[in-house]
Amino acid sequence: MIHALKLFNSLKREKEDFKPIQEGRIGMYVCGPTVYSDVHLGNCRTFVSFDIIYRYLLYAGYKVRYVRNITDVGHLLDDGEDRMSRGARLDQLEPMEVAQRYTVGFHDMMQIFNTKAPSIEPRATGHIIEQIKMVEDILARGYAYEKDGSVYFNTPKFLEDGYPYGELSGRVIDELLNESRDNLKKQDEKNHPSDFALWIKASEDHLMRWPSPWSIGFPGWHLECSAMSTKYLGERFDIHGGGNDLKFPHHENEIAQSMGACGTAPANYWLHTNMLLLNGRKMSKSEGNTISPTELFSGNSQHISKGYSPMSVKFFFLQAHYRSPLDITDDALQAAEKGFKRLMETLKVLDIITLQFNASATEKDKEILNTIRESKSHMDDDFNVPNSLASIFDLISIVNSLKDGHISSQEVSQSCWDTLKEHLKTMIFEVFALKNDVEESSSKSMDGLMQLILELRADVRERKDWTTADKIRESLKDAGIQVKDGKEGTSWSYDI
Amino acid sequence: MIHALKLFNSLKREKEDFKPIQEGRIGMYVCGPTVYSDVHLGNCRTFVSFDIIYRYLLYAGYKVRYVRNITDVGHLLDDGEDRMSRGARLDQLEPMEVAQRYTVGFHDMMQIFNTKAPSIEPRATGHIIEQIKMVEDILARGYAYEKDGSVYFNTPKFLEDGYPYGELSGRVIDELLNESRDNLKKQDEKNHPSDFALWIKASEDHLMRWPSPWSIGFPGWHLECSAMSTKYLGERFDIHGGGNDLKFPHHENEIAQSMGACGTAPANYWLHTNMLLLNGRKMSKSEGNTISPTELFSGNSQHISKGYSPMSVKFFFLQAHYRSPLDITDDALQAAEKGFKRLMETLKVLDIITLQFNASATEKDKEILNTIRESKSHMDDDFNVPNSLASIFDLISIVNSLKDGHISSQEVSQSCWDTLKEHLKTMIFEVFALKNDVEESSSKSMDGLMQLILELRADVRERKDWTTADKIRESLKDAGIQVKDGKEGTSWSYDI
Repeated sequence: MIHALKLFNSLKREKEDFKPIQEGRIGMYVCGPTVYSDVHLGNCRTFVSFDIIYRYLLYAGYKVRYVRNITDVGHLLDDGEDRMSRGARLDQLEPMEVAQRYTVGFHDMMQIFNTKAPSIEPRATGHIIEQIKMVEDILARGYAYEKDGSVYFNTPKFLEDGYPYGELSGRVIDELLNESRDNLKKQDEKNHPSDFALWIKASEDHLMRWPSPWSIGFPGWHLECSAMSTKYLGERFDIHGGGNDLKFPHHENEIAQSMGACGTAPANYWLHTNMLLLNGRKMSKSEGNTISPTELFSGNSQHISKGYSPMSVKFFFLQAHYRSPLDITDDALQAAEKGFKRLMETLKVLDIITLQFNASATEKDKEILNTIRESKSHMDDDFNVPNSLASIFDLISIVNSLKDGHISSQEVSQSCWDTLKEHLKTMIFEVFALKNDVEESSSKSMDGLMQLILELRADVRERKDWTTADKIRESLKDAGIQVKDGKEGTSWSYDI
Repeated sequence: MIHALKLFNSLKREKEDFKPIQEGRIGMYVCGPTVYSDVHLGNCRTFVSFDIIYRYLLYAGYKVRYVRNITDVGHLLDDGEDRMSRGARLDQLEPMEVAQRYTVGFHDMMQIFNTKAPSIEPRATGHIIEQIKMVEDILARGYAYEKDGSVYFNTPKFLEDGYPYGELSGRVIDELLNESRDNLKKQDEKNHPSDFALWIKASEDHLMRWPSPWSIGFPGWHLECSAMSTKYLGERFDIHGGGNDLKFPHHENEIAQSMGACGTAPANYWLHTNMLLLNGRKMSKSEGNTISPTELFSGNSQHISKGYSPMSVKFFFLQAHYRSPLDITDDALQAAEKGFKRLMETLKVLDIITLQFNASATEKDKEILNTIRESKSHMDDDFNVPNSLASIFDLISIVNSLKDGHISSQEVSQSCWDTLKEHLKTMIFEVFALKNDVEESSSKSMDGLMQLILELRADVRERKDWTTADKIRESLKDAGIQVKDGKEGTSWSYDI
């Protein structure tokens, strides 16, 4: 059965019952990365949050089309050097080469965090035709105007006709007068400071450029998401997500563009993730208060005492609700690492516990099944991961108590145990998508272990304890390891 | 110093000295996968071959822009079912969702084979504007004509004006009359059977479609590579590569399109990889004579006796020159696996050999340095990987002889040893991009080893051999392993 969900809708500033447009189906659009620099840790948190939301929606029985774009329109300029060889294509800086490097880096990082690829991952440069079409639609409905090859959205006209502008971000147009991102450049061209660019005529040195009815130019930076969400999810879809910092102007302008082009708002529910702090303060490169994912993994940063595995970091992310800020501190990371380790140890034990459970239902069953239910209903309630995890840890305690004999296995029925086992694995590995990345570092340990075994083997041989020597030989063979005694001593290798 | 190279140019059917258009720089375009099904093993071989070529060009001192496209224009049709809900976007089959699934699968497979991402990976759907522009250019120069919303290349006119058609594939136009791929459909629209489509008007049920000056339609399947290679590498670039099966009509038509649009052929050197056979015969699904990469890895196929690791398969690919066919047989795979294992074992030994080498140059040095030179000159000679590998294996033999004492370390100078070590690692890990994927399966072995150690530990304790017990404790601690003695016996875990 499909779960009923409650979502906190940023547009209404309250939790609402979720009603999909089509029963059982969800269209979800999330603003993806700009691929002209390495992905920030804050972005990683956002994409991990939406990955868990995506995975939970699938778990909850929905058929989901999850679209996350790649912003690969880069505003790189011809540096003017080497003009003599401009004709030689290979000498020119190629924005797509830069975009490719960071797209690959982004995908690698998403894989490191064990996230699922979205259903569609459209690129802004791949949808110029659709963006031009949208500008034409907005122009045709009278909510944009052209000036010298550029096209601007007409915000006052939009408001005049009763459309909302500022509803999502809670800003009023007077405030916007002083804040508009486009204030500084080309403001002479705009009729009103709150108007924003839909299409921009390219200057001589702007490398990325496409033909359009108005000029050789490029799309304004809000347009791609409107055009691509419409193309793949329709004019109106269920969920639009992104980081808090995108509420204004990006998402506000997306709403205006969609309403300008076709009269309807794009999404019914807007979900926004909150920011990452570092030692209580906003991350800021200029103040040195920043840490990158790779620094976090390697420990190569003044802000942390050691490196943390990607899954420990991910588990740390899960400690806060997606709508709450999360403060990175070394202490909090260490605590998360410990919790993660405990979780993984218990999960490792799950399959090897061989206890005699009760054949029929018990009192304890009720408690366990109730906690399982809780861990899901917390997720149904606006994807409350930390609360759900708390229930999961209650279940983990029960497993450990069973293992240690503090609870007798006769107090729990076999069927309840099976349900519990299945539920823990599904939630941890499929929904939260954690995996044991500590285990994976085993090859470092292998050399140490093999050295120890070879020393013990030498002792055994010296003692002429052939029974043990045989046992060692057999065990190594079973473990797929080949030992060779040579001139320089004994060496070992995997037996392919 | 940049290496001088010889390339076998398919266009000339002979080996030529390679002269880049710009000194020290190479623009290379390789036809990538169509992402509407899983990547074939034959494609994997092609992309692995070009990956090694790309890596070797970098090693040889060139600055390379390597472009490999993704063909994501899919010819999926609206199945006509469920017409009532056609307005509901989520109910419609979305070609990009299919393309995304197989693009991700393709990237995963390329990662499994340890290939580098190309410098740019353009998508056909992302370059419709550029393709339309190219059709306009061909029309403007008189080498195409429009019929009922579709545009066709005018092959007879092209030949009439003295341009070559059939030069790459060695076909003459009379032969083409009976072979043209487009023969069966719409041939009534074409003036001549050898003409081919540049733009195709979309039928009612064709899902992917874009506006153009001629019709709402989609580009012909040869056009994307011409448009994208021109965009990212210029009208004329150095190397164009692909599988042998693409020579005709795809590459032949690419040449015609470029010449038709701007008068020059696109690439100076055409490189083509040869095909994979299975048990001496062409792979064919209908005859059951086929094997997929995953079947090869898992062993789940009637054609092989067991699974082979991805690196064993890659090493098998390296046994043949890229221009030769390669026959997959279980015996050949087993032989490759053995050779690969031997290679990895020797490379593992490289860093741990502690021999006293000669302080000054020796006679043996000359032989070693000469073999190193050979291993490179084979690669300079049209990327002859098998010959280069043979030289590498001569070096491997020397390393093994040194290790076993068959050659005294005094016969080799320290500086020569350092060069040898560096060269082997660079060629194997950086150029051929192999890695020890046997090592990585160590976690399976870990459990077996730990079980053995814990048993030995119990024996030792029973014997009250505290010295050995202490040694075991210390070694495990050093290996990062924590042992807990509990009620249910002893368990172990990694010590985070």
